[in-house]
Amino acid sequence: MPIQFADRLNNVETSAIRELFKLLGKPGIISFAGGFPDSAMFDVAGITEASNKALSEEPGAALQYGATEGYQPLREQLAAFMATKGCTDVAPDNLIVTTGSQQALDLLGKTLISPGDKVIVEGPTFLATIQCFRLYGAQLISAPIDANGVQTDKLEALIAEHKPKFVYLIPTFGNPSGGLLNLERRKKVLELAVKYDTLIVEDDPYGDLYFNAAPPPSLLALSAQIPGSRDLLVHCGSLSKVLSPGLRVGWMIAPAELLGKATMCKQFSDAHTSTFAQATAAQYLKAGRMPATLAHVRQVYAERALAMGNALRKDLGDAIEFVQPQGGLFVWARLTGKSKEGQPSVAGKVKDGAEFAKRAIDKGVAFVPGVPFYASNPDTATLRLSFATADVAKIEEGVGRLAQALNPA
Amino acid sequence: MPIQFADRLNNVETSAIRELFKLLGKPGIISFAGGFPDSAMFDVAGITEASNKALSEEPGAALQYGATEGYQPLREQLAAFMATKGCTDVAPDNLIVTTGSQQALDLLGKTLISPGDKVIVEGPTFLATIQCFRLYGAQLISAPIDANGVQTDKLEALIAEHKPKFVYLIPTFGNPSGGLLNLERRKKVLELAVKYDTLIVEDDPYGDLYFNAAPPPSLLALSAQIPGSRDLLVHCGSLSKVLSPGLRVGWMIAPAELLGKATMCKQFSDAHTSTFAQATAAQYLKAGRMPATLAHVRQVYAERALAMGNALRKDLGDAIEFVQPQGGLFVWARLTGKSKEGQPSVAGKVKDGAEFAKRAIDKGVAFVPGVPFYASNPDTATLRLSFATADVAKIEEGVGRLAQALNPA
Repeated sequence: MPIQFADRLNNVETSAIRELFKLLGKPGIISFAGGFPDSAMFDVAGITEASNKALSEEPGAALQYGATEGYQPLREQLAAFMATKGCTDVAPDNLIVTTGSQQALDLLGKTLISPGDKVIVEGPTFLATIQCFRLYGAQLISAPIDANGVQTDKLEALIAEHKPKFVYLIPTFGNPSGGLLNLERRKKVLELAVKYDTLIVEDDPYGDLYFNAAPPPSLLALSAQIPGSRDLLVHCGSLSKVLSPGLRVGWMIAPAELLGKATMCKQFSDAHTSTFAQATAAQYLKAGRMPATLAHVRQVYAERALAMGNALRKDLGDAIEFVQPQGGLFVWARLTGKSKEGQPSVAGKVKDGAEFAKRAIDKGVAFVPGVPFYASNPDTATLRLSFATADVAKIEEGVGRLAQALNPA
Repeated sequence: MPIQFADRLNNVETSAIRELFKLLGKPGIISFAGGFPDSAMFDVAGITEASNKALSEEPGAALQYGATEGYQPLREQLAAFMATKGCTDVAPDNLIVTTGSQQALDLLGKTLISPGDKVIVEGPTFLATIQCFRLYGAQLISAPIDANGVQTDKLEALIAEHKPKFVYLIPTFGNPSGGLLNLERRKKVLELAVKYDTLIVEDDPYGDLYFNAAPPPSLLALSAQIPGSRDLLVHCGSLSKVLSPGLRVGWMIAPAELLGKATMCKQFSDAHTSTFAQATAAQYLKAGRMPATLAHVRQVYAERALAMGNALRKDLGDAIEFVQPQGGLFVWARLTGKSKEGQPSVAGKVKDGAEFAKRAIDKGVAFVPGVPFYASNPDTATLRLSFATADVAKIEEGVGRLAQALNPA
């Protein structure tokens, strides 16, 4: 008899993206497909120094079991890091350390979602969020976005109609949208939380990766201005995009009762996050290297984002539309079905992101079509392009190949 | 309105042990309560060298996102490590790396348990296993143990009656029992798997910590002798007890289909285990330091186990009964209700492990009463004593205090 798996596995399927990623090994492929930072920017010297300091100064703590809530010196450093971002009232005990922010999502699912519960997410949103919440039986509802982030009037209607368990948003340079929720809508979201007594989850792995001006304050920072909203707000942070994903260090700030339940769930998920990684991260933050690291990654990603935007406008013209990103790792684009002005083209026939992705692979460039990022009602013309891991020359060459895929000779 | 948590949280409660652990901060307490290895035995120099090598040789891999299945060089090292333990047919692809073996339990729960499913465990068994499986809605059934491990005749009756989703065993120096399933019963367990088409989970974090002769081969090693049993066997391993818990490196060996589903679940639990910790562990194993590390910890724990057994016999005599452990970290004992021969005593009144634990704290020594380790039908006279973290002098002093708690002047 074959193994009988749990019913919850019927709610998810192995990602279509996985199949695409198998093709990335093809020689000479330029990849805009990844969702990860550029390894070349990791501060290896700083992390090595931090790791050695952790092991020499407190080997017992770095190598022994630790508290499920997190290594206390790291909780203190993370609270101080949040303070530099306008969240001056976060005490170390208001946060727990998670094994990447992916685990924060998992703990929210485990703690809050009973099968059939409704959760509102952005359409599009982070693929692993969709799958994570569905494994706990969530029924996901998509709230549409535009150039200023989630449309709060439509979000309000959906909250009123569905009374969701919570609303999950990536307000700042989200994956895949790269978008930015404007200040007015941020306040509106917090007002909606209070008005409808609805929990809001702010996932914020990209907020530090801004290119010019800093983005509007996080929902967490703004919650001080909207009475009652802080008690209905969860904030997830991560060192993965700014320092290193391999450390698997994220954190979750939440109301005390929820944080307590999430801690209990974490105890039975992985006991605690690697103290070796936590002690290393704590030493890194304590050494004061983060501001220089952030300045460096912001500058490099800003150049690449600009190069990609310029190349897309130049080589694809009217055939594609997108909002030039002000931070993060992604350009979220949409095939218009138009031709680039003045060129013979098959662009009029290629309106589908998945079809375009296949043609692009043939031309030696990869990206992820947009459909899998929608929990419902996908826009099939969309696609996600990451500018994080290719340098400017490769970006220009890759976009040239995209143009060839859209306009074959 | 208060936050509405998921229904699954109704199945668990915060551990009673947590309350006890708060008392451990009392000055001068000798603790036999922990479930962890002695920090003083960590090979800090070896781990530092391994970590530096990982960061200098392959900084990209050590700090970047990695495959959910695990870092390939570590999977290779772990397969080789299993081969040294008689499991010569484990290929790297037959295992996935987990964030401690706690995560392997969580992934088994997520992958296999639908609410109401039955799972058979030993009575007593690992506390965090009970809670972990209950969070997924498992109904747990306890199979009794004796001096030779789980009683296979009773296990067979329970399997036949309940048709469980799987049977979870810690056959070698289990927590809390310290017990050892004998060879005959190991084979019987594998035969039962085949006879009843029942999945068996072998959790083996302590098997390397033997004191004199090596224990009988693991169920995994023996499965080669029982046709069909390998397809019904899951084996969980861990570096936590032999090298360092803080790395959070465990692994799970399972039939391919189950491993694939567990990998998918892991993707949405924490994406992957820290590549920083994985690359460090891989370098450590590759450097060939493990045999010396194992020899060292075996010798130290053997001395302590002997000291604790001798002291218990000398100071508590007939008031307590236990099987002298041949490995692991624990003495599992039972209050007999008798007095130590020839002494005036209140022992006859103290038959309850929890009551004894309270008296012991007053005398300056801590241990964990046995009741929480039972999923059902607890034996209230039991208790768990760890000999791992106190040296021989402290063990003798602590056991002396236990005697005072049982036989007050």
